[in-house]
Amino acid sequence: MVASAVQPVSFDLLARDDAARAGLLHTPHGDVATPVFCPVGTQATVKALAPRDLLELDAPMILANTYHLYLRPGAALIARLGGLHRFMDWPRPILTDSGGFQVFSLQELRKLDDTGVTFRSHIDGSEHRFTPERVVEIQEQLGSDIAMVLDECAEPHDYAYVQAAMRRTHLWAEACLKAHTRADQALFGIVQGGVFEDLRAESARALAALDFPGYAIGGLSVGETKADMLRILDHVTPLLPQAKPRYLMGVGSPEDLVEGVARGVDIFDCVLPTRLARNGAVFTPDGRMNLRNAAHTEDRRPIQEGCTCYACTHFTRAYLRHLTMSREILGVYLSTLHNVHFLLQLMRDLRAAVLRGEFAAYREAFLARYRVADGEARTQNRRARQARLGGADR
Amino acid sequence: MVASAVQPVSFDLLARDDAARAGLLHTPHGDVATPVFCPVGTQATVKALAPRDLLELDAPMILANTYHLYLRPGAALIARLGGLHRFMDWPRPILTDSGGFQVFSLQELRKLDDTGVTFRSHIDGSEHRFTPERVVEIQEQLGSDIAMVLDECAEPHDYAYVQAAMRRTHLWAEACLKAHTRADQALFGIVQGGVFEDLRAESARALAALDFPGYAIGGLSVGETKADMLRILDHVTPLLPQAKPRYLMGVGSPEDLVEGVARGVDIFDCVLPTRLARNGAVFTPDGRMNLRNAAHTEDRRPIQEGCTCYACTHFTRAYLRHLTMSREILGVYLSTLHNVHFLLQLMRDLRAAVLRGEFAAYREAFLARYRVADGEARTQNRRARQARLGGADR
Repeated sequence: MVASAVQPVSFDLLARDDAARAGLLHTPHGDVATPVFCPVGTQATVKALAPRDLLELDAPMILANTYHLYLRPGAALIARLGGLHRFMDWPRPILTDSGGFQVFSLQELRKLDDTGVTFRSHIDGSEHRFTPERVVEIQEQLGSDIAMVLDECAEPHDYAYVQAAMRRTHLWAEACLKAHTRADQALFGIVQGGVFEDLRAESARALAALDFPGYAIGGLSVGETKADMLRILDHVTPLLPQAKPRYLMGVGSPEDLVEGVARGVDIFDCVLPTRLARNGAVFTPDGRMNLRNAAHTEDRRPIQEGCTCYACTHFTRAYLRHLTMSREILGVYLSTLHNVHFLLQLMRDLRAAVLRGEFAAYREAFLARYRVADGEARTQNRRARQARLGGADR
Repeated sequence: MVASAVQPVSFDLLARDDAARAGLLHTPHGDVATPVFCPVGTQATVKALAPRDLLELDAPMILANTYHLYLRPGAALIARLGGLHRFMDWPRPILTDSGGFQVFSLQELRKLDDTGVTFRSHIDGSEHRFTPERVVEIQEQLGSDIAMVLDECAEPHDYAYVQAAMRRTHLWAEACLKAHTRADQALFGIVQGGVFEDLRAESARALAALDFPGYAIGGLSVGETKADMLRILDHVTPLLPQAKPRYLMGVGSPEDLVEGVARGVDIFDCVLPTRLARNGAVFTPDGRMNLRNAAHTEDRRPIQEGCTCYACTHFTRAYLRHLTMSREILGVYLSTLHNVHFLLQLMRDLRAAVLRGEFAAYREAFLARYRVADGEARTQNRRARQARLGGADR
């Protein structure tokens, strides 16, 4: 295995509390305390935030989207400008996806075969092709700390299709490993298999045999029920190597983060906190709150009592509601700042609970108080992932 | 005169260099070094910037729009929430306009008589009425440091109409003075008279007789030529009391700021820096630059070499172009930050030049280098003022 030589990314598992884990991920751009939530910087910017805001929030790592950056401004351009970290002035680790998820979301615009996928740009309709080798090359040009293999993210309920997509994903994973050359970048594998436990087990075993430095769980939070997602997580994480980090792709609602950590996941990413903020929705320990609600018209309280973020220490719900109703950018900025802070703080609290051996109590207390947005949350989450595409995610 | 008792706002003229002045404006929320440019916070936020950004840029004073805040969220609500400073978390001085300019821009939606103007909201079509007494009351509810009288801003080239509007403005100025009660707020008069020197002189004399603590020059930068604007300024400022501050409303292009200071103006406001930023245009010492230009695709330089703002010290034109092409909020934020910094720094430089007695040389050097955007600049500026209305200014 080319990638199994000296690894640029390594993982120390520091503590376990049942299945929940606390660890330290070492990368060329510094260490990341896990479990960790990665805000999404789709187009080389976490929407509405500046890098200095993310540093103030102490975000350990962000995700950027290969599909978007490949199309605009182009990976070769970013490479000539010194790589993605320098381009966007982000000094900490960056994780890039392979672009596969976005391309498969294009549906009418793409054509798949065993060696890759041909698609049309959502920006200008131009034709492009992603192969395992090509997405590795693009991510090497971007210079992310963690790159992902090309995978096929199938509709999760059609057994025959999910099986075929999974086996193609395994072939592509091997091809990606062979193509990968950059010594200062780690390449993670992706477990697929839809909602089927036998396929998930086959996928976990096949990828574990390839000895990746980390494993992602893909194809979840794409339309299946929450019960299905948790059942699959319960089934998959025990099959993954304990010593390697696990990354649950595209998941980021507070309750899912708690449940993911409870099942041994170390890394998460999602556009949810930034996307919700653009719709005036903010996280509180009691659940989501929409700032447009007339109840906030004269409310002198902050979004969340005791929260230490700039939005909560300086502004009332009344003012934030006014900004939101008036569609002012400052409303989006402050809501985004709070939402990202909320998830980062949740992850810090979860990690501390694991280290204290009190994860179960923390989880119970959090979920008892946090009112989940039911089916709506799942739909929003799926929409949020789909909305990564183009101008939709704004 | 009620308002001529102890004044909450006073002005020290510290130095003159020909007609250019350097002063210190004392207000209930602190001192303002003049000449000063006020960024515009139309809806209780300077678009795309947080108060902490404005403090970082050392903005001495901002303007807020009475028309917008009266309609949404309402002046009485802001009063109950502790006033505009507290509502928007801005600790420094605030200047409010009277709302007259916006109402007269509504054209089809308003009906004028000698005691006020009835208009329909651009938000929901509801009917409202502004009288001199009412706009004073609203501004007292907002709690700005400097309030403005209700004036009629007429099309500047129709002599008979401009004359009638001016005389109505004078009657309204007296009515505003009589209605004004708040001891911690100053009320400024507004000189009108279009492009006609005799009317401007009549207006300046009439208002000077009312002994306002400060004087605005209204009805400029509303469609007249640049030559007309400068000619009227040349004519009006010598007729205003030397000891009182002069405020040129709605003017803010770099070249107009220099020419305004050259003619003895102390205070300016304009949406231009924030509005241009939302269109990808940024100020440089050589003139405006549009970040969309393909020439910036791989340009490693900052917007302006040597500029100390966060945008210029951390990001390349290549990255800013990418953000602008991708319509990312961060692009608007960074461009706004730079543009506001550029104008604030220009004002600091102009003031320093006056204090050194070297204003003429500074002016000559600045204008020799700065490429003015000709007619387009005037049109943009006029559009920018009109765009203060509603969602248009975003």
